[in-house]
Amino acid sequence: MQKEDIVKSHKRIEPYIHNTPVLSSQLINQIVGANLFFKCENFQKIGAFKMRGAVNAIMQLTDKQRERGVITHSSGNFAQALSLAALSLGVKAHIVMPSTASQVKKDAVRGYGVDIVECEPTLEAREVASLEIQQREGAAFIHPSNNLDVILGQGTACKELLEKQPDLEFIFAPVGGGGLIAGTALSAHYFGKSCKVIGGEPFEADDAYRSLQSGNIESNLSTNTIADGLKTELGDINFPIIQEHVDRIVRVTEEEIVSAMKLIWYRMKIVVEPSSAVALAAVISEKHLFRNRKIGVILSGGNVDLNKLPF
Amino acid sequence: MQKEDIVKSHKRIEPYIHNTPVLSSQLINQIVGANLFFKCENFQKIGAFKMRGAVNAIMQLTDKQRERGVITHSSGNFAQALSLAALSLGVKAHIVMPSTASQVKKDAVRGYGVDIVECEPTLEAREVASLEIQQREGAAFIHPSNNLDVILGQGTACKELLEKQPDLEFIFAPVGGGGLIAGTALSAHYFGKSCKVIGGEPFEADDAYRSLQSGNIESNLSTNTIADGLKTELGDINFPIIQEHVDRIVRVTEEEIVSAMKLIWYRMKIVVEPSSAVALAAVISEKHLFRNRKIGVILSGGNVDLNKLPF
Repeated sequence: MQKEDIVKSHKRIEPYIHNTPVLSSQLINQIVGANLFFKCENFQKIGAFKMRGAVNAIMQLTDKQRERGVITHSSGNFAQALSLAALSLGVKAHIVMPSTASQVKKDAVRGYGVDIVECEPTLEAREVASLEIQQREGAAFIHPSNNLDVILGQGTACKELLEKQPDLEFIFAPVGGGGLIAGTALSAHYFGKSCKVIGGEPFEADDAYRSLQSGNIESNLSTNTIADGLKTELGDINFPIIQEHVDRIVRVTEEEIVSAMKLIWYRMKIVVEPSSAVALAAVISEKHLFRNRKIGVILSGGNVDLNKLPF
Repeated sequence: MQKEDIVKSHKRIEPYIHNTPVLSSQLINQIVGANLFFKCENFQKIGAFKMRGAVNAIMQLTDKQRERGVITHSSGNFAQALSLAALSLGVKAHIVMPSTASQVKKDAVRGYGVDIVECEPTLEAREVASLEIQQREGAAFIHPSNNLDVILGQGTACKELLEKQPDLEFIFAPVGGGGLIAGTALSAHYFGKSCKVIGGEPFEADDAYRSLQSGNIESNLSTNTIADGLKTELGDINFPIIQEHVDRIVRVTEEEIVSAMKLIWYRMKIVVEPSSAVALAAVISEKHLFRNRKIGVILSGGNVDLNKLPF
């Protein structure tokens, strides 16, 4: 990937996404002892950064491919993203979702007029169900995170953040399937001034941390985390980018995630989902290393079931 | 009051407040069938518009008065506002709070280093406790809503809104003690282009609605509302302004308040307290009258106890 690939992706998707605001909180800065700039992708269309990659991936399909529709499997936000992106671009979408996905997320997908194919909450079940539809409909499979156009799309959030705050020394992003962190790391590399990218990951789903340690793609030993967007695993397209461009990954406990989430809700008065809070939790858990530094934090999304809050 | 009084108040308080953002939501516009512009005072310092009036009132005191400190009684947001305003301006503050005020609000006041004098949750008890301290300390009493400098301060939120959206045809604001709606009505009168101000009020605390009907200041028959900031009653300073400049008041049910609050949280991804939602609930309950109109909505605050959400 070259710088130009991200620039082109950004130009391509701009009419279909929001250039989301960058917010600061004096109180959180005091608590952390650093200057934090929050990229608010919770304000993005469908409530999460995933809209960026979904639009970019569909727009890179040929006309013939677009006619046959697109398909993905996703626990939530990418499902909504591909649904709305497809609707905006006049393409039919099929979505395979685990039966355990939150009601809010299922309702949102149905709101875009898409039929959901429910399956068991395992990666195998998702893949089988999605392959079946690919073969039957000829639909193009778009992976939520292990797809180069998706990665380039997700990287545009970091590009916008650096356009507003060019002097960031560190950018923290959550690590789930690896699409956001890989895109963020590429953008920081091409558009930052020696800006380091650090991932935040729950101890309870620390496949990326262990993958960087071992040099191979590792599986999650558990996915018992409140950060429901981060239960997925790295792929062979994003892992080499992460190896090359991500500085390191900081793991956080469930208590640290909930505490960071409360801090954002109470102090910034914005709604973020637990996955977003993981990035701030990572900053806070190592705040002694970042005194007075300029730090970007990617708040990845705000889709949370208000009936199931952890506080 | 002249236009110049609001302009001067705004200049005076500007260094101590945020010029809060004005947000829109395509989805809420679709639901309501109008163009709504939300003035986000939930992002104001202390999380509510009350900071504006508190700063303005303290800054209008003489040096001698400032030396003796200030006192108020408040169920919540004005308590925090006067505490932070006093701290910012180097003035001592005393706060009388009802024992039933939410823990979040009490903690926030204590966070500014202010001692809280707790009293029974009645207007009489508040007034007795506060008079006692006024006499003992010589502190200046600053009423949360029935004080001209407070009213002028609160009006600056509407002035900022009209600076960004000069063509608003209607502005909705919640009605509690009457300070915000009176200030909003003054600003709409002086800075709007025949912009009408409409109040939103819970059926369960509809003193202002009935006061406008009867022509006298009426008391609440109940205060059994989730909108905890709107349980207070009009005063002799703000009532004549409301009579002259407020078009009318729309009452809403508790269900309408909770439903509007959910809509804001889910669709706009921002945290607002029930009192803020009352203004949107009023628009929605009469949406047939406002098709395609440009409407401002003052989101008054975002201080809510996350452990006691209505959903």
